Amino acid sequence: MLRQVSFLFGNLTKNRGNFALLHTGCIMAKSKFEYVRNFESDDTCLRNCYIVVRLDGRNFHKFSEQHNFVKPNDDRALGLMSRSARSVMEDLEDIAVAYGQSDEFSFVFKRSTNWFKRRASKLMTHVASQFSSSYVFYWEEYFGGQPLLYPPGFDGRVVLYPSNRNLRDYLSWRQADCHINNLYNTAFWTLVQKGGLSTNQADKRLNGTLSADKNEILFSEFNINYNDEPALHRKGTTLIWEKVIETSTKKVTVPSEGNKEVTFTRSRRKVTSYNCDIIGDSFWDEHPDILEEDSC
Amino acid sequence: MLRQVSFLFGNLTKNRGNFALLHTGCIMAKSKFEYVRNFESDDTCLRNCYIVVRLDGRNFHKFSEQHNFVKPNDDRALGLMSRSARSVMEDLEDIAVAYGQSDEFSFVFKRSTNWFKRRASKLMTHVASQFSSSYVFYWEEYFGGQPLLYPPGFDGRVVLYPSNRNLRDYLSWRQADCHINNLYNTAFWTLVQKGGLSTNQADKRLNGTLSADKNEILFSEFNINYNDEPALHRKGTTLIWEKVIETSTKKVTVPSEGNKEVTFTRSRRKVTSYNCDIIGDSFWDEHPDILEEDSC
Amino acid sequence: MLRQVSFLFGNLTKNRGNFALLHTGCIMAKSKFEYVRNFESDDTCLRNCYIVVRLDGRNFHKFSEQHNFVKPNDDRALGLMSRSARSVMEDLEDIAVAYGQSDEFSFVFKRSTNWFKRRASKLMTHVASQFSSSYVFYWEEYFGGQPLLYPPGFDGRVVLYPSNRNLRDYLSWRQADCHINNLYNTAFWTLVQKGGLSTNQADKRLNGTLSADKNEILFSEFNINYNDEPALHRKGTTLIWEKVIETSTKKVTVPSEGNKEVTFTRSRRKVTSYNCDIIGDSFWDEHPDILEEDSC
Amino acid sequence: MLRQVSFLFGNLTKNRGNFALLHTGCIMAKSKFEYVRNFESDDTCLRNCYIVVRLDGRNFHKFSEQHNFVKPNDDRALGLMSRSARSVMEDLEDIAVAYGQSDEFSFVFKRSTNWFKRRASKLMTHVASQFSSSYVFYWEEYFGGQPLLYPPGFDGRVVLYPSNRNLRDYLSWRQADCHINNLYNTAFWTLVQKGGLSTNQADKRLNGTLSADKNEILFSEFNINYNDEPALHRKGTTLIWEKVIETSTKKVTVPSEGNKEVTFTRSRRKVTSYNCDIIGDSFWDEHPDILEEDSC
Repeated sequence: MLRQVSFLFGNLTKNRGNFALLHTGCIMAKSKFEYVRNFESDDTCLRNCYIVVRLDGRNFHKFSEQHNFVKPNDDRALGLMSRSARSVMEDLEDIAVAYGQSDEFSFVFKRSTNWFKRRASKLMTHVASQFSSSYVFYWEEYFGGQPLLYPPGFDGRVVLYPSNRNLRDYLSWRQADCHINNLYNTAFWTLVQKGGLSTNQADKRLNGTLSADKNEILFSEFNINYNDEPALHRKGTTLIWEKVIETSTKKVTVPSEGNKEVTFTRSRRKVTSYNCDIIGDSFWDEHPDILEEDSC
Repeated sequence: MLRQVSFLFGNLTKNRGNFALLHTGCIMAKSKFEYVRNFESDDTCLRNCYIVVRLDGRNFHKFSEQHNFVKPNDDRALGLMSRSARSVMEDLEDIAVAYGQSDEFSFVFKRSTNWFKRRASKLMTHVASQFSSSYVFYWEEYFGGQPLLYPPGFDGRVVLYPSNRNLRDYLSWRQADCHINNLYNTAFWTLVQKGGLSTNQADKRLNGTLSADKNEILFSEFNINYNDEPALHRKGTTLIWEKVIETSTKKVTVPSEGNKEVTFTRSRRKVTSYNCDIIGDSFWDEHPDILEEDSC
Repeated sequence: MLRQVSFLFGNLTKNRGNFALLHTGCIMAKSKFEYVRNFESDDTCLRNCYIVVRLDGRNFHKFSEQHNFVKPNDDRALGLMSRSARSVMEDLEDIAVAYGQSDEFSFVFKRSTNWFKRRASKLMTHVASQFSSSYVFYWEEYFGGQPLLYPPGFDGRVVLYPSNRNLRDYLSWRQADCHINNLYNTAFWTLVQKGGLSTNQADKRLNGTLSADKNEILFSEFNINYNDEPALHRKGTTLIWEKVIETSTKKVTVPSEGNKEVTFTRSRRKVTSYNCDIIGDSFWDEHPDILEEDSC
Repeated sequence: MLRQVSFLFGNLTKNRGNFALLHTGCIMAKSKFEYVRNFESDDTCLRNCYIVVRLDGRNFHKFSEQHNFVKPNDDRALGLMSRSARSVMEDLEDIAVAYGQSDEFSFVFKRSTNWFKRRASKLMTHVASQFSSSYVFYWEEYFGGQPLLYPPGFDGRVVLYPSNRNLRDYLSWRQADCHINNLYNTAFWTLVQKGGLSTNQADKRLNGTLSADKNEILFSEFNINYNDEPALHRKGTTLIWEKVIETSTKKVTVPSEGNKEVTFTRSRRKVTSYNCDIIGDSFWDEHPDILEEDSC
């Protein structure tokens, strides 16, 4: 029947008397197909759980080679990751905290959020999309004249955490991962860049070593105290919302008094960035508003 | 315990005898947290079903206003959508067909695909990410000097279709939607741009009209035969993989014969674009390789 | 190929030389089909959440009519429900608490349970199955000579609750439901059985009344203080595990002392039953072992 | 607040002036808790797929020992399984076919079914419940005076199959499993019961043997042609709906003609049972109504 409709459309000017029929055909057509909507499944996230969306760079090993990332940490790339994450947070106010390191970033939605009716697919695709378009959009700001060779990809997933303990353990897991990888990479590239070893030799040298051994190599052979390395590299980046007081002055003309300078202050929520330990309690004690009560 | 580790780290240079302890602490730390991985759920898509990922522009009404999109159809914007979709397809060869119109694009994975082990979250976030970064990356190619004001967002969803009939009905549904919207928009903007009506007046004029009525208004008042409007606008864009034969000539030096021109041909799969009816059978009869058998 | 195997089987005695071939055919057959296992989806319940399985009687209105249940509450039927629920609990020790009223029963698995690897389908079908077979098995114990006319059905569902607050609110919801229904039913059947109203008249009389009105009708017209009605009817039944000390005496023959009576005591976990308020804090304060900490 | 309500209830007779307050309290109470309903997830099965519910006996090895099941096949137990399965089918008309062997039974819902709105949890718990209560209900009919010692349990699962091929392969998989197990068990128990081997010796004897070897042992040592064993044991039981013509005669008194015998015929759908091969095409060719078209 549909093909007949198409056919009639093709003869529209010759036989406009068929308009009514045509109309019927088209509306019937759409409603006839609409049953396919029922194949969508409902992927609402369980209530009262933190919703974590984690993004990971796709083939970023190759991407970082092709764009000459500095080893072991490229501050431009890390800055661009954080800038893109901030773009996501500013777009989705119900993200309470985000944590990133290397080519990954995790976004934690409030356990009480109702964004996109808590639909997992909407939450994760929106985060993946906004992050990716921001990465390209802000590229130049961080990499200056060095051109972006092709559009990069990130994939994502959703994980739910029912308790504050579970959520903090998740973030601790990612920060412990950052620590272990960065210590390894720092030792590896120091052996290569300052020690003159080939990458193969450096790999062999570190094979089987403990954290303590890597610290010792850095300290005794290169006089590097790992703990003095930039916190950005050792701890990754944590983004949260904070109230900031902004002060501005404006010149105002008051009829009886002439020109006057008036000071305005206003409180505003703003995404702020930390490169500190989030495994211990201090960070959470100092920012009690990030997490909601378990007892709710 | 973890905080103690952090504390010890702070005193690293003073007391390097604690290295061994430190190491133990860190490895313990990471493994202690790793239980959080078990909170991930398995979202593998049912086998032997087509996997459709549909993206929709977020707040594109506003976005199109801010970027001065031509009404009712901006060919630059439509071109950029298709370019981004092609970027996705070239990245994910198991996409058999993609269909787009307005600010939406649907990607159909082969029913037998095993990409990302058929994990719904990976498939949809990867598509959303690659499409979004491509949209920004190729913006300039389509919009020239007009700057992109901010990074745009797309959200996505996954729907499964068990049979060829269901899948074709899905695509027909989207194309019927394209037809109905474009006919309305064409009539609406013609009334405004050529008929001198305000948007309110145009809205009122079209309120309650049937497709036939809109065709009639366009034809009798503006001498526009809707059927002569660009197929791109009326039918949307369908992307498929096709084998193309490429011919190239090279100059070759053969010892006994001197310089010679040799012709090379090779067959290559390439994403090709159609703006045709996909509701009827013709398109599918002409491209029998897009769909797999129901009986498998 | 399979049909050939069947064919060969049909000629087994005539041509036993085909045995080896047959064997190959069968093993190939089974492994050829085993891919269908991959269509099973993983329905593991999110960790660290209470898993509630609720059963509801199917068509129990009709079932209760056909089996002459006493109105408004049949103590035999309520007893059989609780007996069946106890059978489920004794079979699945990880059920921390169960609550039942009318023809429904809810079973709460510990948030840390790992029974059936937390697979929702296994948990709910096992509960539904064990409850239903127990209902028939113990029927005679509660209904004596009155025959069970046909096998009854119960359907079930699974719901997850991330916090103690959520779980207690769930149980409170079911007990509030018990209260509201039982107050209505008590008033309704008193009007019919003692007031001589038809069921239609009783329905009309109660239409639009508040709880207070129903209490007032019972008290002023029938001298019934609703609060003196059996707690079993007003509060439903709560089953929990409790430690009980059991004392038994045995006669023992000691060589030097002759016959002697010796007392043994042992502590055992046992399902115990309550008909009390579980909305307030008292019950939970008195049984602190039922719930696990939110902070885990 | 709720506890206050309970308290007031306790003083109901003393202070009936509080009735209005009480009422408000209770309704508030229930509505305050009702948010917990939102924690239920939607588990609707994908449309246009066959829905298979498979039940498996829990600890049936032990159950069969305790109830003295005949080895290797107890016809009473197999009969009771089929009787229970028929009870499920008669209760749920949208089951198109069921297949059982040993202590398992699979129920296949029509791909177009809308029972329980295709909710997986409802479908599988209802099947598990009805089957289990029937098993106990009909026990005596099959086991006569031998008492059922305790209520047995079955667990279940749901699997979706998008195509006729997939569904038939699923059923073939189960029947191939029946064949392989039954051949083994027949050989094993023949060695024990007729060959005088211990179970250990029989196990050792069969270890590593192919199907052909088992056939050979049965034939050459015990003169048993496996193919002559009962089809019930070799093929399992397949239940389908079939139209049957029922004829009955009644004596009717016609005024002018006196007593007369009148024959009535009517067509009725009835569950019928087969013990035949369902791997090949014959069974399906002979019953073309069981499966629906893939192309729908």
